[in-house]
Amino acid sequence: MEKLIVKLGSKSYPISIASGLLNSKNIYSPLKSGEYTMIVTNKDIHHLYAKIIKSTLIQMGVKVDEIILPNGEQYKTLDVVNIIFTALLRKNHPRSTTLIALGGGVIGDLTGFAASCYKRGVRFIQIPTSLLSQIDSSIGGKTALNHPLGKNMIGTFYQPISVIIDLNSLKTLPSRQFFSGIAEIIKYGIILDYNFFCWIEKNINYILHCDEKIITYCIRHCCELKAKIIAKDEKETNGERILLNLGHTFGHAIETELGYGFWLHGEAVSAGIVMAAKTAELIGLLNFNDTERIVNLFKKAHLPTKGPAKMHAKDYLAHMIRDKKTEKNKFNLVLPSSIGKAGFYTDINKKIVLQAINQCLL
Amino acid sequence: MEKLIVKLGSKSYPISIASGLLNSKNIYSPLKSGEYTMIVTNKDIHHLYAKIIKSTLIQMGVKVDEIILPNGEQYKTLDVVNIIFTALLRKNHPRSTTLIALGGGVIGDLTGFAASCYKRGVRFIQIPTSLLSQIDSSIGGKTALNHPLGKNMIGTFYQPISVIIDLNSLKTLPSRQFFSGIAEIIKYGIILDYNFFCWIEKNINYILHCDEKIITYCIRHCCELKAKIIAKDEKETNGERILLNLGHTFGHAIETELGYGFWLHGEAVSAGIVMAAKTAELIGLLNFNDTERIVNLFKKAHLPTKGPAKMHAKDYLAHMIRDKKTEKNKFNLVLPSSIGKAGFYTDINKKIVLQAINQCLL
Ligand SMILES: NC(=O)c1ccc[n+]([C@@H]2O[C@H](COP(=O)([O-])OP(=O)(O)OC[C@H]3O[C@@H](n4cnc5c(N)ncnc54)[C@H](O)[C@@H]3O)[C@@H](O)[C@H]2O)c1
Ligand SMILES: NC(=O)c1ccc[n+]([C@@H]2O[C@H](COP(=O)([O-])OP(=O)(O)OC[C@H]3O[C@@H](n4cnc5c(N)ncnc54)[C@H](O)[C@@H]3O)[C@@H](O)[C@H]2O)c1
Ligand SMILES: [Zn+2]
Ligand SMILES: [Zn+2]
Repeated sequence: MEKLIVKLGSKSYPISIASGLLNSKNIYSPLKSGEYTMIVTNKDIHHLYAKIIKSTLIQMGVKVDEIILPNGEQYKTLDVVNIIFTALLRKNHPRSTTLIALGGGVIGDLTGFAASCYKRGVRFIQIPTSLLSQIDSSIGGKTALNHPLGKNMIGTFYQPISVIIDLNSLKTLPSRQFFSGIAEIIKYGIILDYNFFCWIEKNINYILHCDEKIITYCIRHCCELKAKIIAKDEKETNGERILLNLGHTFGHAIETELGYGFWLHGEAVSAGIVMAAKTAELIGLLNFNDTERIVNLFKKAHLPTKGPAKMHAKDYLAHMIRDKKTEKNKFNLVLPSSIGKAGFYTDINKKIVLQAINQCLL
Repeated sequence: MEKLIVKLGSKSYPISIASGLLNSKNIYSPLKSGEYTMIVTNKDIHHLYAKIIKSTLIQMGVKVDEIILPNGEQYKTLDVVNIIFTALLRKNHPRSTTLIALGGGVIGDLTGFAASCYKRGVRFIQIPTSLLSQIDSSIGGKTALNHPLGKNMIGTFYQPISVIIDLNSLKTLPSRQFFSGIAEIIKYGIILDYNFFCWIEKNINYILHCDEKIITYCIRHCCELKAKIIAKDEKETNGERILLNLGHTFGHAIETELGYGFWLHGEAVSAGIVMAAKTAELIGLLNFNDTERIVNLFKKAHLPTKGPAKMHAKDYLAHMIRDKKTEKNKFNLVLPSSIGKAGFYTDINKKIVLQAINQCLL
């Protein structure tokens, strides 16, 4: 088993990575006999993975309740969080309870938010089951809900007490979801790690086929990169963590405009990163060859490099103006300056942004 | 002007107390020209106090929006918080915006919660206008929402950047609301400060008539007591802050059972403190004379010392079991051991609790 630590002082927590660890009791420490837990999941994932977790916890003497939420990005809302609160209160869950997020990033974001607010904060454990959630969303304590006027506009910073990554769960993940996760893997290479980008280029076919050795390395490396950033900049205040948002200002516009769930998060991020690269190219920050390498890698991963047919360049702007990084109607964007390096650039000219988007329309 | 500081390291903030300070510009520091604010209030209070604040802020060059929420404890809900989010997003409020809670504890709790979650956290200022919110709820960073299954079950710990108490606002406060605030004033005496309790006994008629000198001292003293506790135990973890919950486990049962808003918070707390005192008496912790002094002081303040006619002793229990202090069906209660001293007592016998409640039925 691989074990990493997210170093955050008294809030530090382990990330455990291995195949088939959901039936191992010590993976669930510090849960103890007599304590309460609530598994939060959706129907599909419940069917696949809840039983083994539940029976292991029950053997430990831990009390287990479950709540099954509707499946999909369009349910990452305040109303659905309220379903979690109601379930917890109906079963009298005390302040010492622990929520267990079992699923992809949607379940993780919902459960983390609920944990941060139920009785002003209870513990939670992440058991991410999608590739995207294993390499990105389960780590770092950003919780989030969507609002009709913008993605992830409601949320808290709230760290889990443990992240448990069972690689076996990828075997049941639909391939479109798998590809979506690869978008955020490629993102790490672009913003932080040139060598990793090259490694992905070389191994993309093994990754696509979920070769066990290759995917294990890949997940561990991404977790390491993210854990390091979080340790340095937990609350996105000193300019490090913000880089992880590469492509997201454009991508969120796509997700919000089309309606949550039409394009997958990773798909929108893929097209969004290409738009960011084009913006960078237009202001003379990034050279054309780098953009081409980025575009080609996304294409190999079956990811979109153009926006959806329905959307015109100006459709992006209204959403981008509400972005969390926007201040006073100025476009502030994370942009790559080469493969392996990115920065946060403020007050970028609106015409340039429009021009970049226009180059990425179907 | 009286100025206190709530000492919480980098999260420290001032409490300013005076008559007629809403039109003074420097009271609103650190707000600066060009920044965004959103005043959150209800119709009645908007009518009375929003104009003066708004015009002062506009003179400072601060951008001011307003949102008017429905008035009442029954609206301290997730749905109403969503109204705040929608208003902020419609007007493109950035992460640097500041929410201004203008009103009683309901507005303060709602606004604080919204500030803690909008774009993962924005600044907020408390301008408490009811007696209760001036001496208690605006200080300390507990935000809260009600759920049909329990009062204040959803919330966060999130500190304001400033608390502005204009004593003039008490002039328009309905007297039943004023009396409700006195319940929490008396609470401070019982749990922390024997001399203050005696002072209240002596001055209760001046307090009831809102004598300026007396009420100013009274508010400042309560703010001081609360600020000290918060500095020592921000998140209710080391046994100090929890004492402020005296009477609330019983009181919340009344508020939830009757439907939010029927009994005022302070009224429910008053009856609840008497129930706690009776419990303490029954287990030999508090002597009968002290209970009588407490009961008499609440009576003088026109506050109830018995539960509502409709409720039987057993009606309390289902609510009390969901209380934030309850663990594994054990009754954990803050109880007074004398006037001026209280403690947190765990696993109190259910029969004793029932007996105490029974002694406080109409
Ligand atoms: N909090 C953060 O830091 C952060 C970071 C990145 C993304 N996100 C969020 O994560 C979300 C996307 O996460 P996602 O891509 O995991 O989407 P998701 O949670 O919707 O999961 C994708 C789909 O795959 C299914 N699934 C998951 N694991 C499975 C498995 N092992 N077998 C079969 N089916 C499985 C799910 O039921 C769902 O239908 C977005 O809402 C995004 O905003 C959050
Ligand atoms: N966060 C905390 O630490 C904390 C502590 C104690 C109580 N509370 C909460 O505070 C709430 C009770 O607060 P409250 O007693 O202020 O109730 P409230 O907010 O409902 O205000 C009482 C009523 O008085 C009106 N009002 C307020 N100021 C006025 C003024 N100056 N002139 C005219 N009318 C005015 C309001 O519009 C309202 O109708 C409860 O929800 C309680 O749970 C929170
Ligand atoms: Zn993402
Ligand atoms: Zn109270």
